[in-house]
Amino acid sequence: MTVLPLHTLEASVLAQRLSRRDISAETLLRSCLNHIDAREPVVKAWAWLEREAALEQARQMDRGAVRGLLHGLPIGVKDLMDTADMPTAYGSPLYRNHRPRQDAAAVALARAEGALVLGKTVTTEFAVFHPGPTANPRNPEHTPGGSSSGSAAAVADRMVPLAFGTQTGGSIIRPAAYCGIVGYKPTFNTLPRSGVKALADSLDTVGSMARSVRDAALFAAAASGFHGLVLDETPAGRPRIGLCRTWEWEHCEAAQQQAVSEAAATLSRAGFSVKEMPLPLPFSRLAAAQYTVMLRQQYLSLSGERLHHWEGLSSTLQGVLSQGVAVTDHAYWDALGHIRHCQALFDDLFRETDLLLAPSVSGEAPHSLASTGNPLLQRVWTALHGPALHLPSARGPQGLPVGVTLAGRPGTDRAFLQAAQTVETALGVSEHV
Amino acid sequence: MTVLPLHTLEASVLAQRLSRRDISAETLLRSCLNHIDAREPVVKAWAWLEREAALEQARQMDRGAVRGLLHGLPIGVKDLMDTADMPTAYGSPLYRNHRPRQDAAAVALARAEGALVLGKTVTTEFAVFHPGPTANPRNPEHTPGGSSSGSAAAVADRMVPLAFGTQTGGSIIRPAAYCGIVGYKPTFNTLPRSGVKALADSLDTVGSMARSVRDAALFAAAASGFHGLVLDETPAGRPRIGLCRTWEWEHCEAAQQQAVSEAAATLSRAGFSVKEMPLPLPFSRLAAAQYTVMLRQQYLSLSGERLHHWEGLSSTLQGVLSQGVAVTDHAYWDALGHIRHCQALFDDLFRETDLLLAPSVSGEAPHSLASTGNPLLQRVWTALHGPALHLPSARGPQGLPVGVTLAGRPGTDRAFLQAAQTVETALGVSEHV
Repeated sequence: MTVLPLHTLEASVLAQRLSRRDISAETLLRSCLNHIDAREPVVKAWAWLEREAALEQARQMDRGAVRGLLHGLPIGVKDLMDTADMPTAYGSPLYRNHRPRQDAAAVALARAEGALVLGKTVTTEFAVFHPGPTANPRNPEHTPGGSSSGSAAAVADRMVPLAFGTQTGGSIIRPAAYCGIVGYKPTFNTLPRSGVKALADSLDTVGSMARSVRDAALFAAAASGFHGLVLDETPAGRPRIGLCRTWEWEHCEAAQQQAVSEAAATLSRAGFSVKEMPLPLPFSRLAAAQYTVMLRQQYLSLSGERLHHWEGLSSTLQGVLSQGVAVTDHAYWDALGHIRHCQALFDDLFRETDLLLAPSVSGEAPHSLASTGNPLLQRVWTALHGPALHLPSARGPQGLPVGVTLAGRPGTDRAFLQAAQTVETALGVSEHV
Repeated sequence: MTVLPLHTLEASVLAQRLSRRDISAETLLRSCLNHIDAREPVVKAWAWLEREAALEQARQMDRGAVRGLLHGLPIGVKDLMDTADMPTAYGSPLYRNHRPRQDAAAVALARAEGALVLGKTVTTEFAVFHPGPTANPRNPEHTPGGSSSGSAAAVADRMVPLAFGTQTGGSIIRPAAYCGIVGYKPTFNTLPRSGVKALADSLDTVGSMARSVRDAALFAAAASGFHGLVLDETPAGRPRIGLCRTWEWEHCEAAQQQAVSEAAATLSRAGFSVKEMPLPLPFSRLAAAQYTVMLRQQYLSLSGERLHHWEGLSSTLQGVLSQGVAVTDHAYWDALGHIRHCQALFDDLFRETDLLLAPSVSGEAPHSLASTGNPLLQRVWTALHGPALHLPSARGPQGLPVGVTLAGRPGTDRAFLQAAQTVETALGVSEHV
């Protein structure tokens, strides 16, 4: 039997072995660092690496008591999140060498559970569209997606078992889908946002990049203080699946549509109840409402940069912010009201279903690093504030990963994750990560 | 006819005279600074004053073009909000001499409209309960309220015509009520929160401290980019008033209850339709739900400070954060769900009414600087996310201001402010500011 290198193992397995002292944090970290040395020139996942300090922290962990859920696990922190001991540039030259005074709250929580912050992962500029240098580790001519580009690439490439992502449109799920890993956007307001550079206040959500549902849950539990999210071994019953093509289905390529249809068929064969569950008519306007709110709120949130440092912004970002000024007051409040209306309707869907099965992205990762792809398919789930999770389940015609999104009812993340885990097993996701 | 000193005039009047060049920004600023010199030793409203830079900016304004809605108006910025050119301590010794890299978005917006940031106003520690040194300018043995203590005191004392406040429980309305000014908490997500130290993400709201409804509206319009909030001269029709004692009525002292009853009687005599409008039964649990969410979210938001610098927090704050750890996952999601439920019910009330008339605080400002008083009466309005505004309308038995809260439907702030202005006139608020 081949012994797999430590850096390739799941976070949950590593956490168990670390807390039992079967392996040392230093050994694991060196395995990750060796792999990073080999792969980083191609993948370019990191905006900052803090080798020596992380090694010193690992040695301290090995000498001291077991800290918590993430004891000794190296993690990546999206460079949109503040770190007091590392520069935090938000993907913008304006913040080169910026040293925040305090860790983002979610980072502080993860550290208190024993996580070793190995470095900062590449984000697009202020988590909008202007890409960083990161390549897709499955094929470096293709985008890893964004804005959580570096986190998705680092986890997919086995550089670290866990990393933080944030999502305003589709910035957790899209890069997870393009890179072929598990991305988990928890219910809005699960992980704290304090110390995360704000983009759109009604939408910004912090979540996990991981290689299994169990790992994504473990990380979210640690970084939110909601320890009830840790999944135990008890298998859950089979959730009722609502096959939800969404109002954006026609914007999906055949490979994405097939991934959804095949997942539904596989689940059905495995004995799950799978039922068509279209979104009600008002949801046909929901992606557009999300876009309106996002344009206006990011225009407002980035007022300091826009008004004091316009020339320091990319032309891509200048263009996006210029669209924000054109959103009228009426359009903004109408869009926010429409989102609230859909949120109220959304709860009703879960009388007849437990999990919605939906497309994740429009298709395989586009062939270019000039753009990070289209967040369209995730806009509705972000606006609805419920949990959403990407599972890689197949390969597309270009050999790149495709998969499905599971979406759930807001505020029910434990049950959602348990249900997602049964789907993960049924779809054989571990073969595709 | 007595000529009133410039620093005592309303912001809207000053803005007009400044933009016509009838007065200079420098003259106005010197009037404010002279008054501050005389009164600051007693009132202690300021955490930081930036005299020379403000004077230089005023001279630049006087030489250059008219900038915008707030051209040449000196303002106070609550020291919970980032300023790139002044220290920002969030009311905590942990952040002494902290210099943020960028202005808070709302500050940048106000500056772009021509506001002169004269300094930072005192906040309680991280906008929780541990008070700063500020005294109530109406009687310095009494608290000015909090957490926006310095902003309320500075505006009430005529040091500046406008200042920023923020509210998570009752931190705009309460100090406005205790100091006898107009406090305006706009609909959630009207003024951007980027660069404002986060306390409770579902509740934190940025708003205006002013001496008239028109001024509060002007400031919110400038600092949000929603220029439609500027009130013109056209008198609105008489809004239908819903007399709303709230489920917390019994916690009000007689002076506060009388203020509400007398305001209702005055409006009725003036020809307004005034109708009892009790809040539905689920709202009896709403203040408690707000408290649960606040405890949990502030505990999470302040994770960096709590986990890395516990000994640097006041014992008051340590106590509050310790309560946060005791909020179970179930209690938190149940409370958030209950708030959502009440938000949905709230909209229905406005079929039969335009404005709710309610108590602002439990009574006059308490006699002590050791506490900033009780936010109980505002918890529901903060949780509901609609506009709320305090109008001073009378004096209590200790000679301190009392008044009323107007509450409105979320997302209808322009109509709300117009309606509030007619109530302001009918109640003769200008006599009490």
